Amino acid sequence: MTKMMVNFQYKNDGEMYCEDVPLSSLTEKFGTPLYVYSSSSLKQNYLDLYEAYKEINPLICFSVKANSNIHILKKLVDLGSGLDIVSEGELYRALKAGCPPEKIVFAGVGKKTSEIEKALESNIKMFNVESYPELARINDIAKRMNTKAPVCLRVNPDVDPKTHRYITTGKKENKFGLDFELAIDIFKKSRTMDHIDLQGIHCHVGSQITEVSPFFKALEAVKGFLEQLASEGFEIPVFNFGGGIGITYKDERPQKPKEIAKQLLPCLKNLNVKEFIFEPGRYIAGNSGVLVTQVQYIKKSPPKTFVIVDSAMNDLLRPSLYQAYHHVVALKKHSQKLKADIVGPICESADAFTVEREIDLVEQNDHVVILSAGAYAFSMASNYNTRPRAAEVLVDGENYELIRRRETYEDLIAQEIIS
Amino acid sequence: MTKMMVNFQYKNDGEMYCEDVPLSSLTEKFGTPLYVYSSSSLKQNYLDLYEAYKEINPLICFSVKANSNIHILKKLVDLGSGLDIVSEGELYRALKAGCPPEKIVFAGVGKKTSEIEKALESNIKMFNVESYPELARINDIAKRMNTKAPVCLRVNPDVDPKTHRYITTGKKENKFGLDFELAIDIFKKSRTMDHIDLQGIHCHVGSQITEVSPFFKALEAVKGFLEQLASEGFEIPVFNFGGGIGITYKDERPQKPKEIAKQLLPCLKNLNVKEFIFEPGRYIAGNSGVLVTQVQYIKKSPPKTFVIVDSAMNDLLRPSLYQAYHHVVALKKHSQKLKADIVGPICESADAFTVEREIDLVEQNDHVVILSAGAYAFSMASNYNTRPRAAEVLVDGENYELIRRRETYEDLIAQEIIS
Repeated sequence: MTKMMVNFQYKNDGEMYCEDVPLSSLTEKFGTPLYVYSSSSLKQNYLDLYEAYKEINPLICFSVKANSNIHILKKLVDLGSGLDIVSEGELYRALKAGCPPEKIVFAGVGKKTSEIEKALESNIKMFNVESYPELARINDIAKRMNTKAPVCLRVNPDVDPKTHRYITTGKKENKFGLDFELAIDIFKKSRTMDHIDLQGIHCHVGSQITEVSPFFKALEAVKGFLEQLASEGFEIPVFNFGGGIGITYKDERPQKPKEIAKQLLPCLKNLNVKEFIFEPGRYIAGNSGVLVTQVQYIKKSPPKTFVIVDSAMNDLLRPSLYQAYHHVVALKKHSQKLKADIVGPICESADAFTVEREIDLVEQNDHVVILSAGAYAFSMASNYNTRPRAAEVLVDGENYELIRRRETYEDLIAQEIIS
Repeated sequence: MTKMMVNFQYKNDGEMYCEDVPLSSLTEKFGTPLYVYSSSSLKQNYLDLYEAYKEINPLICFSVKANSNIHILKKLVDLGSGLDIVSEGELYRALKAGCPPEKIVFAGVGKKTSEIEKALESNIKMFNVESYPELARINDIAKRMNTKAPVCLRVNPDVDPKTHRYITTGKKENKFGLDFELAIDIFKKSRTMDHIDLQGIHCHVGSQITEVSPFFKALEAVKGFLEQLASEGFEIPVFNFGGGIGITYKDERPQKPKEIAKQLLPCLKNLNVKEFIFEPGRYIAGNSGVLVTQVQYIKKSPPKTFVIVDSAMNDLLRPSLYQAYHHVVALKKHSQKLKADIVGPICESADAFTVEREIDLVEQNDHVVILSAGAYAFSMASNYNTRPRAAEVLVDGENYELIRRRETYEDLIAQEIIS
């Protein structure tokens, strides 16, 4: 049942391990709820992508919003990864993680003046620009700072990736990117912007894409657009293809980077650009982490059974926000099954991880493991119901490291005590 | 347009004020995004409820999860309010706010051992218990601590309040409460639990209820249940009727506490209990606060116009999570209108406050005010996209106080730096 999570497996004692560390030893030491990540998975997933596109010398920029723990970022940066950021806060993290600024790309529709200044000061690789007023603001700031801002323009190929409407981003009615007509217009306007260095185009189709066809369609559209730009005299050295490769949460069978690359490489090479950037997040981190939680009560409320655990929607929002499926298993393997709603302690009906699902039989005080919780999990955590955010542990072989300590109640009110 | 928010009004200069303070002076001083609360509103709403039920000497326990800032809790506690908590963290806040323990009630389906211990140590008024295993755990802990735990049992009258399915809590298929059959069984079992003092029943129908009928139906059911209990020899001195009174977000016309009370008081008095507890959250705080944000860009992407602001779903999750309506107005009154999506900078299509709505005409750098943001707003905020959480200001007449400072980037990684 955990074949999508190669480094989270039951061993002979019937317990789940992360690499060579039994999860039970971690919950004993650090308590629950607890996020546990596998270094090997992070590394392997990064390398899968890098190797798949190796012949075009890709710059893989891990999407910080997927998992922004600086220890995890550092792990990837040490492997050669760049970082895709969307805020000044993520820039701060990227620099703390030791990422070379020339491997940092800055996306997002709402960059504030202070954020643009900081990014220019830091000499990041480039901005992904999403609108004309943003480009104008960047030009103004760069002028004031007596510099030139490297920019990719984000275009919107209007391709439907057929995923959850909340994570669809490449369609025309989304707030992201520009349609080709507007984009060509902005390229022309940029000719008079002396402080903009328009180096390329950016195109992100969406998230959790499991087949190659939306990527294909987008590339076809991009190809046409690049030809149009060429005919207008614009030379485009950089193409940023965003992220979007899906993972298995339930029974999806996403194509692997190698298979995808095999099909896309001829098109990519045909674009006549010099540099390729990719921005994966979920693919690298999603199945590299789990959330371990403890059963507090089994509540039998016929016809339903509720397994009440000590993690909640504040720890992992995806099921409540996107009705996302996460597989849940018992930490100690159990062959018997139970039909149950696994729910958190938060006082909302939204706070549920499974609804009427066959799960492993568990009892009070047992631990359960919520899989595929490495991306868009901790990074979306809140303190709702004044719940301290979970601790995070990074495992590497037999070793592990606490990479974020559990919050204390003092932490939670630190900003409210105004002296 | 802001008639539901009596203390947030445009004054003669065309600017919106909170009480006697222009919002523009606050954004100038504290930046955006910024939560602003009105002391007068908090006070008036508390008093509305208290006065409505005055003849039965109600204990109003404000629901901390709705707005957990300790300064706001203190404001209410100083007026005589008790607090309804759902976690050890909320207990910590309640005590910090100076709430007398005998006015603290502890609800929630997943109370951990440590939380129960702490609550017993603190001598809180009572636990709202949601299941038999929870009652058993409390009995065990109280025994070990050589004390007796005061308890209300939460019953589930299976009434449909016809609100959003996520905030429905009193229906049979929810994780909350117990149906009457199970409840009577637990009452009987409690006879042998020497460390449980079963004082009453608790019944919370749901949230954002705008008419009296669900309350009526619940009370009828409760009445029958109390009679059944009496026939079994149980004396029930306490009835906790939860919360649930709705507010106006858009065009709802919820019945006022006074009107509701007028209709419910005869039934309540007829229950033959001695003590009444109410747990309002949204009613007190919802329309006592706003979220002020600044327009970063107006992005014209025909056929759509996006107003991109500097607050996002991490600041206010309700629109994304519940598809909740929040009214949005310009800080400086504007008679012209614009059809737009007001969206945040977060890289998700979910990050939108309005979708194709007629809003006040605004331009880049203008401020807009998101109304009805006093409850389930800041308390659900996260750091997604590494966005520091907003500052909070409490206004009182001409005076104001920073009650939570804006987070810094250092705050955001404080738990990740393990020395």
